Amino acid sequence: MDKTVLLNLLQSVADGKEAVNNAADSLSHLIMEDIDYAHIDHQRSTRKGFPEVIFGQNKTAGQISGIISKMSKQENIILATRVNPVKAADVIKTIPKAVYHKDARMIILKKKAISIKAKGNILVLSAGTSDIPVAKEAYLTAKAMGNQVEYIFDVGVAGIHRLFAHKDLIEKASVLIVVAGMEGALPSVVAGLVGCPVIAVPTSIGYGASFKGISALLGMLNSCSSNVAVVNIDNGFGAGYMAAVINRLTI
Amino acid sequence: MDKTVLLNLLQSVADGKEAVNNAADSLSHLIMEDIDYAHIDHQRSTRKGFPEVIFGQNKTAGQISGIISKMSKQENIILATRVNPVKAADVIKTIPKAVYHKDARMIILKKKAISIKAKGNILVLSAGTSDIPVAKEAYLTAKAMGNQVEYIFDVGVAGIHRLFAHKDLIEKASVLIVVAGMEGALPSVVAGLVGCPVIAVPTSIGYGASFKGISALLGMLNSCSSNVAVVNIDNGFGAGYMAAVINRLTI
Amino acid sequence: MDKTVLLNLLQSVADGKEAVNNAADSLSHLIMEDIDYAHIDHQRSTRKGFPEVIFGQNKTAGQISGIISKMSKQENIILATRVNPVKAADVIKTIPKAVYHKDARMIILKKKAISIKAKGNILVLSAGTSDIPVAKEAYLTAKAMGNQVEYIFDVGVAGIHRLFAHKDLIEKASVLIVVAGMEGALPSVVAGLVGCPVIAVPTSIGYGASFKGISALLGMLNSCSSNVAVVNIDNGFGAGYMAAVINRLTI
Amino acid sequence: MDKTVLLNLLQSVADGKEAVNNAADSLSHLIMEDIDYAHIDHQRSTRKGFPEVIFGQNKTAGQISGIISKMSKQENIILATRVNPVKAADVIKTIPKAVYHKDARMIILKKKAISIKAKGNILVLSAGTSDIPVAKEAYLTAKAMGNQVEYIFDVGVAGIHRLFAHKDLIEKASVLIVVAGMEGALPSVVAGLVGCPVIAVPTSIGYGASFKGISALLGMLNSCSSNVAVVNIDNGFGAGYMAAVINRLTI
Amino acid sequence: MDKTVLLNLLQSVADGKEAVNNAADSLSHLIMEDIDYAHIDHQRSTRKGFPEVIFGQNKTAGQISGIISKMSKQENIILATRVNPVKAADVIKTIPKAVYHKDARMIILKKKAISIKAKGNILVLSAGTSDIPVAKEAYLTAKAMGNQVEYIFDVGVAGIHRLFAHKDLIEKASVLIVVAGMEGALPSVVAGLVGCPVIAVPTSIGYGASFKGISALLGMLNSCSSNVAVVNIDNGFGAGYMAAVINRLTI
Amino acid sequence: MDKTVLLNLLQSVADGKEAVNNAADSLSHLIMEDIDYAHIDHQRSTRKGFPEVIFGQNKTAGQISGIISKMSKQENIILATRVNPVKAADVIKTIPKAVYHKDARMIILKKKAISIKAKGNILVLSAGTSDIPVAKEAYLTAKAMGNQVEYIFDVGVAGIHRLFAHKDLIEKASVLIVVAGMEGALPSVVAGLVGCPVIAVPTSIGYGASFKGISALLGMLNSCSSNVAVVNIDNGFGAGYMAAVINRLTI
Amino acid sequence: MDKTVLLNLLQSVADGKEAVNNAADSLSHLIMEDIDYAHIDHQRSTRKGFPEVIFGQNKTAGQISGIISKMSKQENIILATRVNPVKAADVIKTIPKAVYHKDARMIILKKKAISIKAKGNILVLSAGTSDIPVAKEAYLTAKAMGNQVEYIFDVGVAGIHRLFAHKDLIEKASVLIVVAGMEGALPSVVAGLVGCPVIAVPTSIGYGASFKGISALLGMLNSCSSNVAVVNIDNGFGAGYMAAVINRLTI
Amino acid sequence: MDKTVLLNLLQSVADGKEAVNNAADSLSHLIMEDIDYAHIDHQRSTRKGFPEVIFGQNKTAGQISGIISKMSKQENIILATRVNPVKAADVIKTIPKAVYHKDARMIILKKKAISIKAKGNILVLSAGTSDIPVAKEAYLTAKAMGNQVEYIFDVGVAGIHRLFAHKDLIEKASVLIVVAGMEGALPSVVAGLVGCPVIAVPTSIGYGASFKGISALLGMLNSCSSNVAVVNIDNGFGAGYMAAVINRLTI
Repeated sequence: MDKTVLLNLLQSVADGKEAVNNAADSLSHLIMEDIDYAHIDHQRSTRKGFPEVIFGQNKTAGQISGIISKMSKQENIILATRVNPVKAADVIKTIPKAVYHKDARMIILKKKAISIKAKGNILVLSAGTSDIPVAKEAYLTAKAMGNQVEYIFDVGVAGIHRLFAHKDLIEKASVLIVVAGMEGALPSVVAGLVGCPVIAVPTSIGYGASFKGISALLGMLNSCSSNVAVVNIDNGFGAGYMAAVINRLTI
Repeated sequence: MDKTVLLNLLQSVADGKEAVNNAADSLSHLIMEDIDYAHIDHQRSTRKGFPEVIFGQNKTAGQISGIISKMSKQENIILATRVNPVKAADVIKTIPKAVYHKDARMIILKKKAISIKAKGNILVLSAGTSDIPVAKEAYLTAKAMGNQVEYIFDVGVAGIHRLFAHKDLIEKASVLIVVAGMEGALPSVVAGLVGCPVIAVPTSIGYGASFKGISALLGMLNSCSSNVAVVNIDNGFGAGYMAAVINRLTI
Repeated sequence: MDKTVLLNLLQSVADGKEAVNNAADSLSHLIMEDIDYAHIDHQRSTRKGFPEVIFGQNKTAGQISGIISKMSKQENIILATRVNPVKAADVIKTIPKAVYHKDARMIILKKKAISIKAKGNILVLSAGTSDIPVAKEAYLTAKAMGNQVEYIFDVGVAGIHRLFAHKDLIEKASVLIVVAGMEGALPSVVAGLVGCPVIAVPTSIGYGASFKGISALLGMLNSCSSNVAVVNIDNGFGAGYMAAVINRLTI
Repeated sequence: MDKTVLLNLLQSVADGKEAVNNAADSLSHLIMEDIDYAHIDHQRSTRKGFPEVIFGQNKTAGQISGIISKMSKQENIILATRVNPVKAADVIKTIPKAVYHKDARMIILKKKAISIKAKGNILVLSAGTSDIPVAKEAYLTAKAMGNQVEYIFDVGVAGIHRLFAHKDLIEKASVLIVVAGMEGALPSVVAGLVGCPVIAVPTSIGYGASFKGISALLGMLNSCSSNVAVVNIDNGFGAGYMAAVINRLTI
Repeated sequence: MDKTVLLNLLQSVADGKEAVNNAADSLSHLIMEDIDYAHIDHQRSTRKGFPEVIFGQNKTAGQISGIISKMSKQENIILATRVNPVKAADVIKTIPKAVYHKDARMIILKKKAISIKAKGNILVLSAGTSDIPVAKEAYLTAKAMGNQVEYIFDVGVAGIHRLFAHKDLIEKASVLIVVAGMEGALPSVVAGLVGCPVIAVPTSIGYGASFKGISALLGMLNSCSSNVAVVNIDNGFGAGYMAAVINRLTI
Repeated sequence: MDKTVLLNLLQSVADGKEAVNNAADSLSHLIMEDIDYAHIDHQRSTRKGFPEVIFGQNKTAGQISGIISKMSKQENIILATRVNPVKAADVIKTIPKAVYHKDARMIILKKKAISIKAKGNILVLSAGTSDIPVAKEAYLTAKAMGNQVEYIFDVGVAGIHRLFAHKDLIEKASVLIVVAGMEGALPSVVAGLVGCPVIAVPTSIGYGASFKGISALLGMLNSCSSNVAVVNIDNGFGAGYMAAVINRLTI
Repeated sequence: MDKTVLLNLLQSVADGKEAVNNAADSLSHLIMEDIDYAHIDHQRSTRKGFPEVIFGQNKTAGQISGIISKMSKQENIILATRVNPVKAADVIKTIPKAVYHKDARMIILKKKAISIKAKGNILVLSAGTSDIPVAKEAYLTAKAMGNQVEYIFDVGVAGIHRLFAHKDLIEKASVLIVVAGMEGALPSVVAGLVGCPVIAVPTSIGYGASFKGISALLGMLNSCSSNVAVVNIDNGFGAGYMAAVINRLTI
Repeated sequence: MDKTVLLNLLQSVADGKEAVNNAADSLSHLIMEDIDYAHIDHQRSTRKGFPEVIFGQNKTAGQISGIISKMSKQENIILATRVNPVKAADVIKTIPKAVYHKDARMIILKKKAISIKAKGNILVLSAGTSDIPVAKEAYLTAKAMGNQVEYIFDVGVAGIHRLFAHKDLIEKASVLIVVAGMEGALPSVVAGLVGCPVIAVPTSIGYGASFKGISALLGMLNSCSSNVAVVNIDNGFGAGYMAAVINRLTI
């Protein structure tokens, strides 16, 4: 929950505008709310600096909009990931202020503009055109968390001069997110060029022995460059989130 | 290569103490040196802020000490990882100033004391006693890279109050390294408590369906907490390195 | 077969109401019935305390209702699992007294109310909202087998205080069923808090390296808590059944 | 920790025999003790009804005897599993009252005789002679936890009449532990005969496509009998522990 | 090719009814025919005692009926396996004498009634109702190859008395085909009862850790009964074929 | 980019027909072009002798035709692989001169006829009828790259005389491409007959334990014939490309 | 148990030479004997035509000779498989009449010469020299079960003319056992040449992607020839046994 | 067999120096020789341009020297691969002219100097120092087959400038062999720079999720560069052989 919600409530009690009994009830809801199909963790933004993010993949549109509604009473920004277009349309009908980003399959609800919270900046690289949906998910997440983010797409190792053409941008980033499918070699090459932390994101792009991203995942876990850590296959959201919490250290 | 080596050489040329021809030769060696069985990347410390680290597992003692010897002309600190005691003894014989850390299977050669380079601090947690060798490798690496590092061992989820007893230390860290084998649940739980980046290290501790760390690795890649990124099974070195390059942002 | 069916038949013979020849025929059917596509094991309820449960996944609607019809002559309660809505609608048309539980994909036919058969009680926990269908299957199975059952959903380890908020309910259960996807860490944490048996159910919720539940399954098999045993991925039914036969010991 | 240890301490305080300051110190140690390489969870026996069990596989003999020494101040029974003969000999030298069970690779230290704590009884079955070490580990664990336990070895499905010869013993058990390698079919067959809970333990016995127990593990997870739950490959200890916490319900 | 086709051709040449040139052409086609998308192996029935069987899964309806047409000039019986209903309807339109067996997904074209070619008889057992399609494919194949075949379905190990009820039939078979999904335990149990060869067929029936038949396959490969050999997952055809070539030895 | 494009541009500058500024702009585009969703590597044909090939699987029709449009300004031949019929229809609408090869799922745009560039010739063999789509992709690729290519389909090892019937054609090839699914045995047998390089292509044809081509892939990687190298499952394109760059050496 | 043992005992009772009480005791032992670490299935030879075979891999020398001693009272031939040389030496010391076949790792105890029991004959083929140990295990097993057996070694597909040189021998066999490692292609090729049943045995010979026999196993399971069934990796014994029970049908 | 051996024999017959009977015997041996444990394929050098190479891994020293002895009567060069030092010493004792290359684990017997047979040249690259044994095996094999071969070791992607420093050598090669472990990214990067064929060799170097070379193997199979084909893990020999048969086309 956004801290100001808490402060306002306590002020109301102090001012006698709110009965103690009611405030106690409100407070317990402010921390965690049990709505049968979900236990909303309202305390998360206080504890972790960003509210709970809704994993939309196996939830119904009703469950997603239900959770957004409850959360939006306390939070300024709400994200739902892995929402397909059909479900998204249903959610937007209920919550018209939410915006659906189709390529990244994300719903974002902003109650006010997001302010930049870190000095450093994040750069998202993708190896291929087909990796863009995952790269966009990382990009939008890191932006929503208050970072300066840029991206360069389709600079894979088969034509490595395309990568070197962007060396300046790469070297000035505080954190790099590198997204690649197939053999997943790009993070190793990029991390070999710079000293900053690199978050590697394997994608399920490929066929046959790519095994839906296992090949890229293994490649990244075995990177011969040491400034690399890895998130789940197609987990653009996680990469964006991790990059954001790292970039926070540049404040 | 340490930058001062470069400055000294150029100064010698400027001072007429060194012939241009000789200096050119030296310079090309300062960048990369081909010693038949290895291409030493002397430029790495300039480019990445820390010299090449020797992967000792499949190298002979002779190869390890050969590389250390060449590197030590240019670097103040040299690490070799995954060196077994027999090989280590051979290396130490040749390079007596090097120190072997048996529990972490690392050789460290320091030419001078390491200065602290970052404001933040790193905390290493291990789930079990058996994970200590990997945790120690992370600890020693992060320390060698100029960080304030602490550790707490054997605080796995089977007795979760042991973890909560150290909540203060956990909450004040800039970066957490969490080492666990078996089901690898500890990083998820820890990352749920804090907002800082968590580097998760799966270990091969366990038996049967732990599949030499695959179980822990998969658990960590699928963490329901978002501030987690993962390195290879038993890769304490990589975790320490990644934590260090993240912590650098706190300068 | 319900024992009273058997007693009634034998009484009819004793009373001379039923010819011995006919009774012999009936008896052989009462034990096992071959209806070409199935060998119905009518003896199962005598032998195991609960009748055969129909695995609906690869059966046609016709086969399912055929088996229910034959069984319902001898049993008071019949379950069919993994029945999709289309097939379920067909079955319900033939057997209107059967009830379809859509979220758990189960058909239940009760000929009379189920009496509570055990003193202890069973608690079902789920890590996420998406795990609810599997958790509900466990819940309905355990209830159908004559147990007091309760549930708490969406209390995963990313916000562990949600779990601790229900500590009382957790500690008073005789048997726990813990359902989780992704990294499957919840059973380890829960089992570390209590001394009672925990049945862990991995779900296929997740993506990428969750490998349709393998990650959660491995996590649970490698639990560092010892009071845990595991059933198949998404096997809510099996967990509910196992919990029920354990809870029977509290009679 | 054994509850009487706690009661004695508090009584000493009440009687003025122990200063409050000293008692506070003792108490904090009674709950959890940090001995650098381990955080001993002394509270576990109060919380779970049985003290922490030492996983000996990757610990040194020194670590094992160190932990046993600390624990033995508070507990009447201590178990260490997966201890090889060489390490065991070292431990026994330090702690002569401990007994090493070679076939089960367990060290057991009993400070007094174990009393039977449950009315029900546990039966351990093994499919082959080669499965005996795992079966013995289950047997010894369940016995150490205060149960009446019996065993029958080498009654696999290749000669199923050997199993049926023991039908009486099988039917009177409260909980069954069934240990099998290779195809792991025995738990399904046994569970089909009875109504009680069956804990299935896959072993790594076999070769080729047994894949060190994966084949047996998968067989058991897919059991067509519903009163089956599974533990890790070769995890006799876990099976014995789980059977014991189930059997406790028969008190 | 059926041997009489060859004899007739040669007789025509001998009788002067057929020019030598034409006969040479015919002969080369009788052995192998290249129709661009297929090399029909007409010699197979001479060499192996049964004509080539068409693997329909990835062929178009046009390719299937094209091959049947060419083959039917030389053969009395033609089989096509793994043909889905849509393709089958197309094929039947072109070749109306062919019969489609929907449950086994097979097309069979018989030009005359099949005579029994072996003294022994084959029995097909299935563990569950859901395994029937694969069992039927085995049954139809063995019948088409001139064998006496019977079947018993749904006699899995969860209610083993159902199997024992058919002991007489099982003991009098020359060859057994045993079809099972899930844990695949039935072949081991059956093979333990008899001395004849058992062909085990794993099916993809199950879910979760059945891994589309891998679990059953591994179970059968690791059978503790020695008179068992295994075919591919869901390969009813191969099992029927293998049983037929074995049963041929009873002539 | 085709070299003549470059020569023409430079000639225009030399002739004063093109301003230097404009030419510089053109040149930078001639090397690499960033169109947001793709970095087109125009330099590839100079560097590698053939332009970039478009991987169509995860691209939209719009992206594919966008890239073709940009490339076609500089290249005489453009290939797009793994394009399904729906997307292909869309692309052809925009670029009517492109031709869609449905069986190989390829789009080919030729601006002028392809001249033969190598003396040697390439032969494509397929084990079955179902492998034809992959074999055709290899065939079309090698042809598009300026080679003499022939093919023979459905000559798998189950009727090995079909293969030997084509021995002459096989022995006169400079490079062989051998395509097979299921057990993937054909490349080993073929490579044992000849001394030339064999490119083995596993296909996903099969079912059950073929694991979508893994079985064939492993078979080919373990070939006991040494003149074999392997490409990805179903990668007909890669095999054709590799065969072409090998055959180039025969110039 | 050999049937004559049973007849002799009953005759003794009939002749009054043996008391009924003693005979009853003897009889129960004749069927199954519980010697704590094993339940010897003496009835197996009556039921299956050949006595229980001892799986020596995980048994101690003492257990093996103990079982042989008990069995030898009732059987004329006893086999123990997978016995390493050290254990074998110990067993032979206790049972000097037993013979150890080192290359096949088998112990065979014959009380009298084995008579040929079938008209057909069995041929064992191996792909390579390294497969001989497994092939020999098959050969010795089939011989011990009373069959005419021959072998040809090292006729793999890399030089297929070596195989064709033995076509006569291959075509006259009733049952073929084909042993191969690496890609395991030989059974497909051989089975394509003949109409008789082929038992395929994958071996663990190879390295890298042979994955200890998985590659060969998968190849054989996916054989495009239909007269093939498969046994476990390195299971020469099972192949010999299966071939023998098949060959029995030629009586 | 070397062709001159054949010519000499026939000349002797023509000259009447050799009886026809004896010559027939010799000839049959010249083609294939059955020495019980091996069928030596003497025809291979005629058929394939290089004699059979001995796979030494699972053969005894006696078998290896036996085969070399037989072959050396007909061949000028003989290779045995994967021979450990102990076996090698035994072989060299019997065949003192053979040379053991320890780092590559190969035995090479040359009866006369090898002449260069191709115009093109082969370059072997390795990513790391630890990959040298495999790279050396490739180097020695290609050299033994009559090629000009060079190598550059330790030029992996973590310091990519080391690779670019050798661009000239790389660009002038006809065929490249690229050896890499861990993530196996080097072949993709190298193949992106050149137009010639690249043979990629994954090695088992690495740990944890490298899975003994699977990670590198998958990376190479999924290469985004198209001029790449792959051989088995650690198969330096196969890479050298394949490169040699490709390079032959440059004659």
